[in-house]
Parts: sequence; C-alpha cells; structure tokens
Amino acid sequence: MSGKRTEHVVVIGGGVIGLSVAWRAASAGHRVQVVDPEPASGASFVAGGMLAPIAEAWPGEEELLELGSASLERWPAFADELSRASGLPSGLRREGTLVVGVDSADRALLDDLADYLARRGRTVTRLSGREARRREPSLGPAVRGGLDVPGDLAVDNRQALAALRAAATAAGVEFVAARAEAVRAGAVELEGSTVDCDVAVIAAGAHSGELHPALRGRIRPVKGEILRLRARSTALPPPSRTVRGPVHGRPVYLVPRDDGGLVLGATQHEVGFDTAVTVGGVRDLIADAEQVLPGIAEYELVEVRAGLRPSTDDNLPVLGWLEPGVLAATAHHRGGFLLAPVTADAVLALLRGGEPDALVKAADPSRWGGQQWTS
Amino acid sequence: MSGKRTEHVVVIGGGVIGLSVAWRAASAGHRVQVVDPEPASGASFVAGGMLAPIAEAWPGEEELLELGSASLERWPAFADELSRASGLPSGLRREGTLVVGVDSADRALLDDLADYLARRGRTVTRLSGREARRREPSLGPAVRGGLDVPGDLAVDNRQALAALRAAATAAGVEFVAARAEAVRAGAVELEGSTVDCDVAVIAAGAHSGELHPALRGRIRPVKGEILRLRARSTALPPPSRTVRGPVHGRPVYLVPRDDGGLVLGATQHEVGFDTAVTVGGVRDLIADAEQVLPGIAEYELVEVRAGLRPSTDDNLPVLGWLEPGVLAATAHHRGGFLLAPVTADAVLALLRGGEPDALVKAADPSRWGGQQWTS
Repeated sequence: MSGKRTEHVVVIGGGVIGLSVAWRAASAGHRVQVVDPEPASGASFVAGGMLAPIAEAWPGEEELLELGSASLERWPAFADELSRASGLPSGLRREGTLVVGVDSADRALLDDLADYLARRGRTVTRLSGREARRREPSLGPAVRGGLDVPGDLAVDNRQALAALRAAATAAGVEFVAARAEAVRAGAVELEGSTVDCDVAVIAAGAHSGELHPALRGRIRPVKGEILRLRARSTALPPPSRTVRGPVHGRPVYLVPRDDGGLVLGATQHEVGFDTAVTVGGVRDLIADAEQVLPGIAEYELVEVRAGLRPSTDDNLPVLGWLEPGVLAATAHHRGGFLLAPVTADAVLALLRGGEPDALVKAADPSRWGGQQWTS
Repeated sequence: MSGKRTEHVVVIGGGVIGLSVAWRAASAGHRVQVVDPEPASGASFVAGGMLAPIAEAWPGEEELLELGSASLERWPAFADELSRASGLPSGLRREGTLVVGVDSADRALLDDLADYLARRGRTVTRLSGREARRREPSLGPAVRGGLDVPGDLAVDNRQALAALRAAATAAGVEFVAARAEAVRAGAVELEGSTVDCDVAVIAAGAHSGELHPALRGRIRPVKGEILRLRARSTALPPPSRTVRGPVHGRPVYLVPRDDGGLVLGATQHEVGFDTAVTVGGVRDLIADAEQVLPGIAEYELVEVRAGLRPSTDDNLPVLGWLEPGVLAATAHHRGGFLLAPVTADAVLALLRGGEPDALVKAADPSRWGGQQWTS
C-alpha cells in the first residue's frame, strides 16, 4: 500500500466504531462504504455510554487507562464536531461520575482503586457515604463510601448513533445493507457478491472473529444485559452524575439521560452468541441498583435488552493492520463509545500510510505474535 | 325493546368480552359492529388467561364462584366451537391447576380455601410439598403444601383473541377503528360522528365507566403487571399445570403456554389509568415466582407489560340492561377469559328479550339501587 493513495474504504460494521471511522474517513476525502445488515442495532445500541476510564481503571490495565484517557480528552471536540456535522445533539453529558460502594469489601476496592490511580498520577477524591449523598441525594443509605470522578463523562448512545449516521451520510458515506462473510486484501465477501476496495476496515464487534483468519479465536462475545428505566412523576429524580458501584463486589452502573431516562447495567455472561435477557440477570441488576438508588423501584421499566461485547484476553481493542489492505478497528469490549475518537484518529493515520499515536501500539494485532504490518 | 326484533348491535370494546359477544351475536343473526381503536390490545392482550374459579375462590364471593364455575363448564364447548368457526387453535389447555404455598400463613390460607370449598360442595385434594413436587418436578424446595385443582384450566389469551377475531370476521362482524366517547339508547357517539343501532353493548373494560352515566364511578382500573418468559434450552422445562401461589401471602401465578412460554403475574396497583411497568413490580413478581419455580432464573424475559383490570366494589362484572337499548357486559376484573362464555350467552338471551341464567342476576347493574330493566 505504501505510497499509494487509499481511495476506496469499506467499513464492515455500523456500530459506534464503524460509523465513527466511516464519518471521519469520508470527511478526509475517502470514498467510504459501510457494510451492515442493520446499522446501529448491535452492542452499540444496547450500551450504557459511559466514558469512564478512571472509574473503570484496573491494576494491570495501564495501556487501556492511557488509551481511554486520551480518547476521553478528545470527546468534547469530537462531540462538537459531530453535532455540527449532523445537525443533531451528540448526546454528550458532562456531569461527571461517582463511584460508590456498599459493604466493607466494596470500600476496600474503592481504596485500592484510589491508591492505584494516585500512583498513575490521577488523583480522585474519596467521599464518605454522607458526602456522596450530598452530591447525589437520591443515593440510598446503603452507600457507605465513594469516589468523586468529575472528569469521567457519559454519552447517550442512541443520540450519538443517530448523529453519527447523519454525519456519515452527510459526508457521503454509502450504506450497504448486507452481511459480510469474509474479508481479504482488496475485497469484502458478501453473501453472493463481492465488494472490491483499497482498504477494508473490520469493525464488526463480536462478529469480527469470523471475518479474518488473524482474528479467529481472539475475540469472544461477552453478553451484557441492560435495563432502560424512566423516572415517573411520582418518583425521585435520577442522579445528575453517572453512578457506578461495586455492590457487594458486583459492578453495576446507572447512567442518566437528558430525558429522565436512566440506563442500568450490566451483567457479564460468557455464553457465546446469545442475546436473550434472563430473568436472573434482570433480578440481579435490579437488586444491586436498588442498593445504590432505592427510588428506582418507582421507575418505569421501559426496555430490557442484551448486547455482545467484543472482548479480547487483555481487554484491549484490536487496532492495526491485519495484512496490507485489511485494518482491524474492533474488540472494544466495554469501551466502544469511550474509544471511538482515538480509534477514528488512529484509522485515519493508518489510512494515510502513517503511524498512529504511540499509545495505540499496545492494541496492534501483532501483540499475539503475528507479523507487524506498517501499512 | 320488548317485542321488537333487535337487528343492529354495536359492541363497544374489542377485548375478549366484546369479541365473544360480537362473534356469538353475529352467528345468531344480528348485524354486529365492534367499535375499538385497536381491538385485542388492552387488558385481554396482557392477561394470563387462567380459567380458575376454584383456585381463586374467596369467602364472601359465592356468586362469583358460581358464575365462574358455570362459565368454566362451558369453556370446552366454547373452545371447540371457536376453533371450528375460526380455523385457528382456541388456546385452551386442559392440564389443570396447582395452588401452592410457601410459609405457614400460606398453608393456613390453603387450608381455609379447602375448607371453604368443601362447604360449597367442591372438594379439592390437599398436597404436601413433596406431593406437589411429584406432580410438578420444577417446583422448588420452598413449596411446603398445595391443593390439586385439576378442573381449573387456562387459555392462551393471545391465541384465543386471534381466534375470536377470525371467528367474528367470518360471522360477518364489522370492525370500526374508532374510540367511543359516549353511549345512549340507539346511538354510540364517536369522535366527530355517531353510529346508530338498536342495541349498544358496552364491553370497554376499565374505560366503560366513561361511556354511560349508570357506570360512572362504578368501575375502577386495577393495574396488573405481567411478565412473559420463555424456557431456554438449558433451563428446566416449565410446569404442565398452571401454578398459583400465595407466596408469603402475595398472589402469584405461572401459566404455561404450549410453545415453552410461561406467563408470570400479576401485581395489583390501584393507581388510575396508568399502564407503566414499574421496576418494583417486576422485582416482586420475579422474587415471588422464584420461590415457587427457582428454575425461571434461567428463562428468557421476553416481555413486560401492564393492563388495567376493570373492577367493581364486589368483584362481580356488570351484566345487564343500563337502560332500554344499552347493555353492559363489562367489569370482569380478573376474569374476562373465564367469564366470556357465560357472558356471551347472557347477552344473547338479553338481546332476544329473554332472561339470562339466574346466576347472572347477581351481576345486574340494578344491584347498586338503580332501576332493573328487563329489556
């Protein structure tokens, strides 16, 4: 590819990553097609939309923390540009995040997280239960401690997807309503036909592993069940910040929307390509969330749905050349929305034949021992 | 009306009662119209479909027990005729019902119910927890006792509604997609127009009270939240019988469907015309049902929905003339499906200028002190 101008890009997958890449690539002058039988309908449609690299940091995942932090820094400009390009709200909310804990083990987890973040140069404020409730009066008496993370934000995933589709369309992206079956250099195989291209970008989430030999066995689906609630007029209003727990050690999050909605997630089940919502999953989510926000008992349950996170063994995405002419921009696990800006920037740099930011290197597919392609 | 042949009947409401009345009246030679903006979409669409006058008997509600028992006796013939007339399955299941209890107060309730039924000449078999589990192996260890009620049946409400619509259409019933605003002798007022008729039959469920002065304040909506589950291949199969509890004193029922579905109901909230499903309602239903059938944790949660039962102060329906030319066949509370055959028969007798069965007398609107019209 080196030296040759990449004209025609086909993006496989119309989730948040595929749409972001397509929009930005088309804006940069490429001819772009997005192949997806139903864009914006997969895990991105189900997602909570947390942009929370700090609240979700974990010892041993330093590269992900750096990548997420870099992407979060780009979100405000990304959102402004998206809103301008689409004429629609980006869905970004800037109210910050509280991490809360319920029992002594949860508080120990929060202490460990705060210590870890301090060592990484990121200071968060520890809160007593009372201080947490002062910030968010709807928190329940079971909340015994917290961390204030004002820089961790959230985005209304469905607003963002609508804006991305509109921006992509306005930039000239063509949508091909078909399912890709395989990807090789210069071609994307559909059922019964082939789309030729200069570069194919695999952004097909949990299904990416089926599309190219280099991804086979590397990306596994992790089911997440999510509930969408809405505050009723008789109920306590939702918090203004995203609230994330460990509740008795289990992760749970509550992400407010501008319209009184509240997204409650998420279970984690490693059960293959199964998107059924289970009774037990719903029961556990409600029980954990009620510990944090008892008032949700009076909320309307608007929707239950499950999506498949595309996950790798190190929780990092796969971002780089699989072979000349085939890029991977997938496997964003729980962080598709968070990592969309940094991923789109990296793909644009790679399409230009350049190098992405150094912090993207950790996500290169060559980390599994294959050849490292530079273009 | 006396002596004059009733030709043209307008039924207001296309739920199970309205459709049953319309089908039977059209089959009897009347010209019938059904006025409903969206037939088969209200409480009947949400219902569990229990046909369980014995399991749901309650001291002091003797007339309802007799009415329900009479209607249940007619269900097999009603179902056969419905299936023949529609060419569709009626949805009737003949596997019977188990009432189960969890704690000592529940068992005392079951004893009271069994004693009461014995005094009413209806003997049911008491079961230990072990005997109950022998009949339905999916019952959990928390079940400490039960009653075997093989004669109480169930119907797949959505299959029955589809069959009733088809049978009504085949019999010549005309559907008018409009909302009725008021009913008076000889006329049904729609928004912006009037439908003339010989007899109007009010079968509009919880909305019936808005349609005629004699019903005002007599029929209140009682919200019921219901979950629809489906057994997954990895889960225990559902019971073959309907299982009904008191679970720690709260009513809960699990009604199996032929396709592996299981309907789980129902909460009771007196909150006006509100059909929002609440988080707390779903949480309670799941918790109670898991006591009875722990395996549902692995079931898929397919649907959550609420309907409005049309209820009166004595839990009896309203079945009789409100004035010459205006019949009420409404307010069937939790028993619309159960009472459909006896209601349709009564309406047909009244349309002929005759008297309905004596046991229907208790449901006559004159019980509130108004004039008793005979036709």
